[in-house]
Amino acid sequence: MATMKVHGNPFSMAAMRVTAVLYEKDLDFQFINIDMKNGEHKKEPFISLNPFGQVPAFEDGDLKLFESRAITKYIADAYAEKGTELIIKNDPKKMAIIGLWLEVEAHQYEQPAAKLARELHFMPLFFGIPSNPKVVEENEAKLSVVLGIYEKRLSESKYLAGESFTLADLHHLPTLHFLMMTPAKKLFEPLPRVSAWVADISARPAWLKVIAMLKN
Amino acid sequence: MATMKVHGNPFSMAAMRVTAVLYEKDLDFQFINIDMKNGEHKKEPFISLNPFGQVPAFEDGDLKLFESRAITKYIADAYAEKGTELIIKNDPKKMAIIGLWLEVEAHQYEQPAAKLARELHFMPLFFGIPSNPKVVEENEAKLSVVLGIYEKRLSESKYLAGESFTLADLHHLPTLHFLMMTPAKKLFEPLPRVSAWVADISARPAWLKVIAMLKN
Repeated sequence: MATMKVHGNPFSMAAMRVTAVLYEKDLDFQFINIDMKNGEHKKEPFISLNPFGQVPAFEDGDLKLFESRAITKYIADAYAEKGTELIIKNDPKKMAIIGLWLEVEAHQYEQPAAKLARELHFMPLFFGIPSNPKVVEENEAKLSVVLGIYEKRLSESKYLAGESFTLADLHHLPTLHFLMMTPAKKLFEPLPRVSAWVADISARPAWLKVIAMLKN
Repeated sequence: MATMKVHGNPFSMAAMRVTAVLYEKDLDFQFINIDMKNGEHKKEPFISLNPFGQVPAFEDGDLKLFESRAITKYIADAYAEKGTELIIKNDPKKMAIIGLWLEVEAHQYEQPAAKLARELHFMPLFFGIPSNPKVVEENEAKLSVVLGIYEKRLSESKYLAGESFTLADLHHLPTLHFLMMTPAKKLFEPLPRVSAWVADISARPAWLKVIAMLKN
């Protein structure tokens, strides 16, 4: 079997979501660095892999995919028996609960979290652009509501979808990692369940391997 | 088996996504109208079904769900053998292609499409609020890029994920329905493949039943 290929950038939160799954699954892969500073993701050959010109793109033999959450779901499904069990097959009601929290991440959490990570971390650090206080305030308010709901949920179960770590928790890791380096950390501190969950999932060996890729 | 329950509003695009799947699957369900004008979705008992206070919420026996795309995926999975086959089970690579276009709908298409539907249809019609030309222009530009990519994709296969109608096509129906009543229709007209796809999926008997609910 050919090695899987991830075309991305170690600092792309979407690419990190994919490599986190590959490490959880203990699968070999080749990471092909896309030079985003020089716009490589907007040109051929990359846009033949993803016409939207966004990293990551992914190959597993003849299968070519893009959209990080489509890639992670594919890997969790196709390699269900390898490494950490990230989804539940053959039990639609149990899978629905994982599915629910996957959608909550995508449609409630991600937008304010990613906007804050960009505004408070990436823009000042990589581009020297100061944060826009209005955007920060607006997205802190939105994220706060989401985290309040997570706090209640995490008082009912250890992880978002139940007693085990699943793909739904994992999808939060890249944004959490960068948010925790910013003043938005203050939104998490008053929430003991959320804070314990962040500490727990951030300490997973697979995730530490993703972080190590940032330092190469 | 108890009848499934959809708590929503016939004009909610997210609720329409769910009822479209139920009709495709030929499943009985009870539609419980939530009086959104009076903020019923922001109060108990609704917020016990969905803490985010958004319609729809869904019940199937002891299973309670929210987030429309989690609900549709659950129904497509749990009732795979009933009615139209909307996903592919037991073939991860084929399912990955459906998964890819499900994510494209959620992360590329939905935001500009839903913003335009709100700005050009719901706000003027239901609230008497005129469209904001800047928001319209911005989102028309974004949607145009997405539709251009769809045009190319639909020259390779009849539907987004291949030769059959799947959940990935279905998820577009509510926004398409309202967009086609607005000046944003002009973005579709120069695209023959996209136009044929819209006409095809909009004429499905299951979808016509969803539309009929708007007239009651």
